[in-house]
Formats: sequence, structure tokens, C-alpha cells
Amino acid sequence: MERKIDLKDIKIKDRFWSERQKLIKDVVIPYQEKILNDEIPDVEKSHALTNFRIAAKMEEGEFYGMVFQDSDAAKWLEGVAYALCVEADSALEARADKVIESIAKAQQPDGYLDTYFIIKEPEHKWQNLQECHELYCAGHMMEAGAAYYEATGKRTLLDVVERLADHIGSLFGPGKRSGIPGHQEIEIGLMRLYHTTGKEKYRELAQYFIDERGKDPDFFKKEAEQRGWKHFDMDPLDTKYNQSFLPVREQETAEGHSVRAVYMYTAMADIAAVTKEKALTEACERLWDNITRKRMYVTGGIGSTVDGEAFTIDYDLPNDSVYAETCAAIGLVFFARRMLNLSVDRKYGDVMERALYNGIISGMQMDGKRFFYVNPLEVNQGVSGKLYGYRHVVVPRPEWYACACCPPNVVRLLMSLGGYGWGEDADTVYSHLYLGGEASLGHGTVTVKSMFPYEGDVTYQIAPREGKETFAFAIRIPAYAKNVRITLNGREMNVDGGMKNGYFYLSRTWETGDKVRLAFDLPVRRIYANTAVRANAGCVCLMRGPFVYCFESIDNGSELSALRIPADAAIRTEVCEEGLLKGMPLLKLDGVRMHGSGELYFEERPNAEAVTLTAVPYFAWGNRSNGDMRVWMLEK
Amino acid sequence: MERKIDLKDIKIKDRFWSERQKLIKDVVIPYQEKILNDEIPDVEKSHALTNFRIAAKMEEGEFYGMVFQDSDAAKWLEGVAYALCVEADSALEARADKVIESIAKAQQPDGYLDTYFIIKEPEHKWQNLQECHELYCAGHMMEAGAAYYEATGKRTLLDVVERLADHIGSLFGPGKRSGIPGHQEIEIGLMRLYHTTGKEKYRELAQYFIDERGKDPDFFKKEAEQRGWKHFDMDPLDTKYNQSFLPVREQETAEGHSVRAVYMYTAMADIAAVTKEKALTEACERLWDNITRKRMYVTGGIGSTVDGEAFTIDYDLPNDSVYAETCAAIGLVFFARRMLNLSVDRKYGDVMERALYNGIISGMQMDGKRFFYVNPLEVNQGVSGKLYGYRHVVVPRPEWYACACCPPNVVRLLMSLGGYGWGEDADTVYSHLYLGGEASLGHGTVTVKSMFPYEGDVTYQIAPREGKETFAFAIRIPAYAKNVRITLNGREMNVDGGMKNGYFYLSRTWETGDKVRLAFDLPVRRIYANTAVRANAGCVCLMRGPFVYCFESIDNGSELSALRIPADAAIRTEVCEEGLLKGMPLLKLDGVRMHGSGELYFEERPNAEAVTLTAVPYFAWGNRSNGDMRVWMLEK
Repeated sequence: MERKIDLKDIKIKDRFWSERQKLIKDVVIPYQEKILNDEIPDVEKSHALTNFRIAAKMEEGEFYGMVFQDSDAAKWLEGVAYALCVEADSALEARADKVIESIAKAQQPDGYLDTYFIIKEPEHKWQNLQECHELYCAGHMMEAGAAYYEATGKRTLLDVVERLADHIGSLFGPGKRSGIPGHQEIEIGLMRLYHTTGKEKYRELAQYFIDERGKDPDFFKKEAEQRGWKHFDMDPLDTKYNQSFLPVREQETAEGHSVRAVYMYTAMADIAAVTKEKALTEACERLWDNITRKRMYVTGGIGSTVDGEAFTIDYDLPNDSVYAETCAAIGLVFFARRMLNLSVDRKYGDVMERALYNGIISGMQMDGKRFFYVNPLEVNQGVSGKLYGYRHVVVPRPEWYACACCPPNVVRLLMSLGGYGWGEDADTVYSHLYLGGEASLGHGTVTVKSMFPYEGDVTYQIAPREGKETFAFAIRIPAYAKNVRITLNGREMNVDGGMKNGYFYLSRTWETGDKVRLAFDLPVRRIYANTAVRANAGCVCLMRGPFVYCFESIDNGSELSALRIPADAAIRTEVCEEGLLKGMPLLKLDGVRMHGSGELYFEERPNAEAVTLTAVPYFAWGNRSNGDMRVWMLEK
Repeated sequence: MERKIDLKDIKIKDRFWSERQKLIKDVVIPYQEKILNDEIPDVEKSHALTNFRIAAKMEEGEFYGMVFQDSDAAKWLEGVAYALCVEADSALEARADKVIESIAKAQQPDGYLDTYFIIKEPEHKWQNLQECHELYCAGHMMEAGAAYYEATGKRTLLDVVERLADHIGSLFGPGKRSGIPGHQEIEIGLMRLYHTTGKEKYRELAQYFIDERGKDPDFFKKEAEQRGWKHFDMDPLDTKYNQSFLPVREQETAEGHSVRAVYMYTAMADIAAVTKEKALTEACERLWDNITRKRMYVTGGIGSTVDGEAFTIDYDLPNDSVYAETCAAIGLVFFARRMLNLSVDRKYGDVMERALYNGIISGMQMDGKRFFYVNPLEVNQGVSGKLYGYRHVVVPRPEWYACACCPPNVVRLLMSLGGYGWGEDADTVYSHLYLGGEASLGHGTVTVKSMFPYEGDVTYQIAPREGKETFAFAIRIPAYAKNVRITLNGREMNVDGGMKNGYFYLSRTWETGDKVRLAFDLPVRRIYANTAVRANAGCVCLMRGPFVYCFESIDNGSELSALRIPADAAIRTEVCEEGLLKGMPLLKLDGVRMHGSGELYFEERPNAEAVTLTAVPYFAWGNRSNGDMRVWMLEK
């Protein structure tokens, strides 16, 4: 059983991540706070904090926003909590306390907390689980409450969400009324409360919602008939959309709304790690395999269609009409991290890394001020954002959204990154990522100097808690790592001998000052897709380390589909010397541009013109221009 | 000025087309007649003929069907008229007479004729030109009236439509109320009446509707505001949809609903050929070039998106989410034929041939009982017809449609094919296609033995009307023809010397028995698309003669995107020896199937397995199975 990690004990000093955490702390969190307070002109109005003050009777006014508007405040608070773990900030904390104060005052005497229904439709509480997100918002508030308590030791919000959880537990459960959320999240929130408070009742309630789902696929249909009113006009018969088509343990494939799906799988894995239940564990493994082996973009993005923001079918991974919502990739990381609790296997860490370095951070503009909801792998002028089937593929990143789920999700994930990079149980310390900095864990403190992701060179210096302690130190070795070398205090280790499920285990009695150095080569890799992925037929994708690369028209001219990567082209890494991408490793290669006759259809084989091609890390695309972009390139 | 051709004077005895005309005569027309009479169970109810009998007070009942249901009856009658030209059939003619009788009785004393408004909403006549298709239905009825008169000499329907045209002319025009149809067709119908009756007023009214269009882009908006009711909820501001965004002479690109567009261009070209107006002629040429050089599928299909059944932007030609409505390709042939009246150039004949042998007849199942509305160039199991963006790509061909525009359109085109194959003016007889059979024209009779489209071998035997006459005989030489040989009475001609705009002209005093033989090679051609067509990047399409070929999974296995056509593969023509495609030339080649590691993403370059590939003519696809299909194949 994994030990709980206190985020405050992990300090990230990392070439790649430190500047991103700083950006979020300095720019994104204050920017989002201003948005939540409606202080930024010409941006979608939020009203999220005002709603709480109105519900608390601290202000007069009407509810404004989506039925799940409360979750924006909750996610911001959770992000603030993690930011306070990264670096103390008493002014920010004071402002967060004020927000929490209004939330606490908004809570009803029975524990109920949802400003939409408190202000607007109190007579409709709990009648529309399918559409109205009460349980979803509650789940996010629970995560915020637990996080804020852990960060600050302050119990106000934790007490609020415990009362809220108890209120929900008084209504739903075995022998009470039955219910499942239309958008999963309460299960994660309750498990978070369970981990923080140790109270079994929260795990039991989380498990109730998981167990109940799909038992009666007509649940939402009956609910809709009973209440006789609608909020969004969602189809209660579309049971795949919200994964209620089958009991969760019987589900074989990842279906429906991808964020709902991975949030649910996250909770399932979390519960399974506690209960050790075989059927639930196997369902998690099956769904994991289905996603990552058949339904995941090379960027870690998931969700192939805008229609229901959903999974489609195996190997259907269109690059241009893709959805790949930022939140879904984040949810996949949540799921991956919980799977690592179930069993330590690099396949989970590798996917976590894939999503983190590509399809998640692509969601945020490099200045922290604009965000993608949709993360395409191909953008074409005149088509993306404009034509039917592509209207959702908006370029550039918008400033904010009416449904602003993604930006605060990026914040809370990246500010709690330490918890994804490290793991620990009774016997072992795990380095899942290669985060530079310092991790003070139960077994001792590990200080890391990391050149990753730019180079495969990471040095761990270990200081056991009592100066000397016996435990295993396990490092994920990514599947792509070439020529892996590991030294212990300068002495070469037998890497193959120490490998288990993709982790290298070094089991010994550690002494202060012991140094483990991991080195591996990071050549540029040509990646091919399964032949069943028709969108990528004939194409190659370039990767180096965790980075997927892409080609933008600003570097390579228009008509990216006319470019070819020769099969024998040598690919050079060059550090970008100027501009916004300064310091980033770019790829340069001798490519080819095809030229036809100019006619629409013609018989003469197109000519190949030699051209130098430049690829940039995928996450950085769309920062210098709003031109075309392509990840998968035709090989020649 | 082109002379009018009497369809009865052209007899088609052609390897390819005769069996299709027979199928239409024996199967399709009777089948459609049964559908119009609602005698086929489990097929979309039509009620089209009943509507006329109800409007005529010959029966009691309610209107049923689309607001343009009348046009199905009109198009069927037009097809019947052409069928009677191909072969007399007194029983069919008698049944058509009965239908015409009910139409004549349905006509109102003032000339009005539209069963929807006569039966259902008489108070709403002419109020909703944008949505309600009164002018559209009138146009189709005019075509039917003229055709039926020409076929049988019977004036009943011609008189009806003249009264209808006069009624419309009494309402709309300079100094009267202004109006333009929401769906163009009346312009074609009026020009048809003009050509048949010689009455200038019909050309003038046609031209009025053309000239009026786009003069006031807010016309439909104002109309909608004035009437205050809706039929379809179409957006009156979407002026591109119905080509009212600009005056027609100022339009640079083919925009909006593709059938509306080409119907309009057809009428424009028809009018321009009469009036010789430069601005209108240039608009036609510009729109022709835009379509055929930037917005046309290799099959002759047009309309890249289901969204508005419309053109999109230059070079946007997706193969799998394509629309390419059968009617639109038919409309392109209408347009092409009228352009040939404006100037004889093979570019028009070549496109006419492309659409006829590919994207039009693909619309009809080989048994004549099922029809495509949408003609895809790529079909994928689990995607086509199922997923968002592809739901309109229905396989197999459905039996009938609620909006049944395409099946009768195929009928009327193919039964009047003679008019597309031949042309004549004061100096010249034109062979636009290579139809076998006999054409009795003004200058004389031409008897044709044609091996086309299977071989490039056509012999024309000429019998001048007076035994001896001086005129030019001009034959289109398709752009793809290789090694063209032409002999006159066995004597080799200088082909290059006689070429003008892609036609070979033989000008002389012809005597009875003169023989012209055209021969050219029909090698398999590798066709490439403009590099701006991203859907076809890296791909090749195989053609032989006019036929586009495609690969079906029934011949080549699943995952057609994993197949490659080596650049140096020899391609053999083999006549199919059994089954439904018996007698058809198939293509066989040594191709390659790529095999990956089985993982979703992997580093090892996929292996190439040698496989024999089979391609079938595109029009014949989806007749033996409902599997995958692809026209454009990756080249290796």
C-alpha cells in the first residue's frame, strides 16, 4: 500500500517544470482569480465567486453561469492549495480564505452546497443527477477541501466538504435512494476525503456510486420521466455518454465522454488499490489497455470526436477532427497515477509522461493566458475552426471559456506534479518521473539533479531518514530509453538484472551521500502507428525523449501535406537560438516538398524538391503564429 | 448556334450504355412508378401522384410528403418521355397520360400548380420562395412538359406548363414583384420551354430570375420578415447556400449547395449561348474553372461537405466525409453540356464523361433498385454511416429517400444521353462521347460502332442527308487518350493538324459510306492530385479510359489504408470472369500490405508483404458487398 505523500515535502527545481510552476503561480492563478471575479474585460463572464457570496446572502444578485459553475471556484482553490505547497504566499492564502469563508456561509444547514440550486431552483435539488452536476461540483469541492487542509492545516473547507459528503451519504446509498452522477467526479472527491481523513464511510460512499453505475441502464431515463423537466436536453437514453450502459466491472472498452470516463476509471483504480478487489482491478486494467493500446493519440490525448467529446472506436484517431480535450489527457494522468498504486509498471508512468509533456501542456499558451480545450494533431487554414466537422478545432488558443474546465485543471495538475513524480511504500521509493529538486519521503530525502527531458541524465543523491536505512530505490526506465546506464556511487550496475516491469530496482542499505546516476541516450525516434489507424497511414511522427514533435507552417511553409520525410533522412537536434522557443531543442532534417503540375489531377509523378524541415516540440505549437500544423508526416 | 437535337433521332446501341438504358426502362422506371404510387412496402412513402389527384379533386385526402414532392412526379414524367424516345411503349405512355391528366386537373384557373399549397396552405402561395420550392417544382414540370411533347407530340402537359410559366411571368419580373427561387431550377425549365416553343418571353423570364439573384442579398431576409412564418427553419442570412450572396456575374467561386449552384450555372450557360453576353459567359467560364480545377472529385462528384450539401473551399476534397451528391454530378453534366454550346472545348466533354462513367452511375445499384445520394471515395467500417461527420455516408445504397431527388435524376439523364453525346450546328457535327448506335442529324446520319469505354476504338460511318454534303465532323479526343490514330476510309490522318480545343475536325464533302475510325490506347493511368488536396497527399488513383478504379475489401481484405501501390508496379487489365462484375475490366497489380508491430505506436519500420491487389471500376463498387472501399491509395 502506497504511503501518502505530503506535497509540501517535495520541492521541484527542474529545468522544464520549475518555470511552468512559476508561470502558473505568477500569472495563471492570479489571472484565473481575476476571471473568477469578473475583473478581466472582454472575456467570458465567470461570476463563480459571486454566486457563492449570493448563496451566502453576503450579496444580492442572481446566479449566473453554467450549472457546474461552482466547480471553477473549487478547482481554483485546489490549485491555490498546491501552489501554497510549492511556495508560501500569505496574501494569496488570505484571499483564498475569504473565498472559503463565503463557501462555508453558502452551505445550507443540512450540508447541501450548490449555488445554482440554492439561488435559482431550490425546489429541484437532486432531481436531475443526469444533467445538473451537483455531485460533480461536490466532488471538486471535496478535492479542494482536502488539498487546502493539507496545504495550510486549515479545516474550514474540509469541514464544509465533510458535512457535504455526510449530507450526500444521508441521501444516497444502500437502503437509501439510489443515484449515480451524470458526470463522475464525486467518486474521486470522496476517495480524496478518505485518504485525507481516513474515514471508511467516504470510501464506501465512493464505492457505492461506482458499484451502482450501470446496474440499471435505465436509471437516467426513469429519473427524467419522474422529474418531468430538463436542463440541457441531454438524451437520457445515451448511456454510453456517461458510462452507465453496463456495470463498471463488465465494461470492456472506453466509451462515451472521455473526461467522464477517465474520472470514473481514476476512482475505480483508487478504490481497487484499497480494496484489492480482483474484478475491479481487472476492469481498470482492461480499460487502461483499451485506451492506451487502441484509443490514445501519440500526444496522450484521448477522445476522437467532438460529438459527445467522446471516444469512438478502436484505432479511429483522426488528427484534424480530433477532440483530445486537455481535461481528458489530465484525467488520463489521474488514472495512470492510480494504476501505479495498483501495480508499479512503466506502462503507466510512460503514458503519464507522454500526456504531461505533450497533450496537456499544449493546452496552455506559453504566456499562461490562453488555453486550448481541443488539442489537434493537424491544423489546416480555412478548415480548422471553420468548416463543419472542424469548427471545434479553434486556433489560436482562446482566452477563456464559458465551460472553463480545462484551465484550472492544468493548474491543479501541474502544481501537484510532485505527487505524480514520486511514490513510496513500506519497502520502496519510486521515481516515476525525473523531477529535479528534492523529495523528503518516509525513507529519506532524495535530491535530484535532472537534465531531463532535454538529456537522459539524472543524478539522485539519497539521504536516509536515520542516516542509514534499508529500502529499494526504483526508477522508471522509459520504454524508449536507449543505451541505459546506471551507476551507484560511480559503480556501473547491471541494468537488465535490476529491471522489473520497466523499473530498475536498487535494493540496499542506503547511506547518506549515496548517489545513483541514470543515463540514457535520447536519439530522435521515428514513430509509426498501427496500420489500423487509417489517419496515420504512410506517416511517421518524430519523438525525442518524451516530446512529440510537430511541423508548423511558420517554419516550413504552407501545404504541410506536400512535405515528406525521407526514410533515410538524418535528423539533427538544434537548440533554438532566438525568439519564443529560445533554448528549446528543435529538429532539423533534409526533407522533401512535392510539387505537382498545378492541375487538380494529372499524370506526371510529382517532383520532389529538397527542403530543410524544422520540427518543434508539440506542446509549443501555436505560440508564434496561427498557421498550419502537423504531427504525422508522410514518409518517403 | 447549336441546332436542337430530337432525341428520337438518336438510337444508342452501345456496349456500355444500352444495358443501362434497358435496365432503367425495364426496372427503374416501373419501380419508381410503383414508389410514386406507394405500391412498394417498407419503402419511404411517396404519395406524389396521389397529391395531384387530391389537388385535382379526383380523390379525397391530405397532402403528404416534402414541400417539393411534386418534382418527383415531374422528373419521373421527364424520364418516361425520354424512355419513349428510346423505345415506344404504349402502355407506359397511357399511364403517363393518366398522370398528366391529373396534373392538368390540379392546375388552378390562374395557372398556379403546386399541390402542397393547393391542398394544404393556399393562403401561403408565393410567400416563401426561400424554402418552399414552388418555382423549383414549376421548373421541373416545365422540363417534363417540353420533354413529353417532344417525345409524343402531345400538348396537354406542355399547355399546362406554358400556362404555369405565364402565371409566374404575370407575377414576377421587371415592374412586377421581385423574386428569386430558393432552389434554382425554374431557370432551366423556362429555357427548356424557350427551346421547345421558341417563345422569347420564357427566355426573358429565365434571365430575369438569373439577373435578379444577388442584386439584393437581403432578399430572403426581407421575405422572411414580411411573411412571419417558416417552413424548414432555413437561415435567410445564409446567402451563399442559395448563391444569392452576389449578382451572378460577379461570382468568382462555386459556393453553397452544390445542386442549386450547378443548376443555376446550367441556366446561365444556356442563356449566355443564346444572348452571347460576355459578362455572363465569363462568369460561366470562371465558375466552371473553379469547380473543375479546384473543387471536383476525380469521380466528377462535387460538394465536399454534408453541411448544406455544399462546396467548401478550394482543394478541400475529403474522400470519407465527402458529399458528392448524385444530383450534383448530374447537374455538372447539365452545366458541361451547356458550356459546349458556348464553346466547343474538350474540357467540357472530358468532365461530362468523367461524371457519367463514375460519380453519377455509382449512384445506382447495378440492379437498378437502390440509390446513393452520397458517393464517397472512401468507406470505412464502423466509421462511414456511423460516426459524427460520416453519418451521411450510408452503405449500402438505400432503397429510396424521403427526399428522392437523385433516382429520377439518374433516369432522366441516362435516358436522354443521346443529347449529351451529339451536337450539331450549321457547319459541324460533334461527337462529344463515343456512343455506339445511330444519330440522324441535320447534316446526315452517323452510324457508330464503339468499343468504348473498354477500348479506344470507334468507327463512324457517315451518310449525308442528300448523299453528299459539305460539313465538318468533329470528334472529342479526351486529354488522356494516348497514341491517337484517326483514319478516313482507311487513310491515316494527321491528328495534330486537325486538332482545335481538343476536338479533331475533319472538314470535307462527305459521301455516303465514308468511314472515320478513331483509335487510341487506353493504358492504365496513375493519377495524382494537386498537392493542395491534403486528403490525397501521397496517394495515387488508377484510371483507365474514363473509369476511375477503386479497391474494395471484398477483393483486397480489410484495412485498405495499409495497402500500398509500388511506384513501379505493373498494372494488368483482366476481364472479370464471373459474378456480378462479369465482363468488366478489372485491374490487377503486385501491391504491398504494410504490417506493424501490433502496438498502437512503435519504432520499427512496418514490414511490407507482397500481395496481389484488385481494383474494380468505381461505379460498380458496393454491389457485391458492403465492405470498405478506397479510390486514392498510398503509393510506395
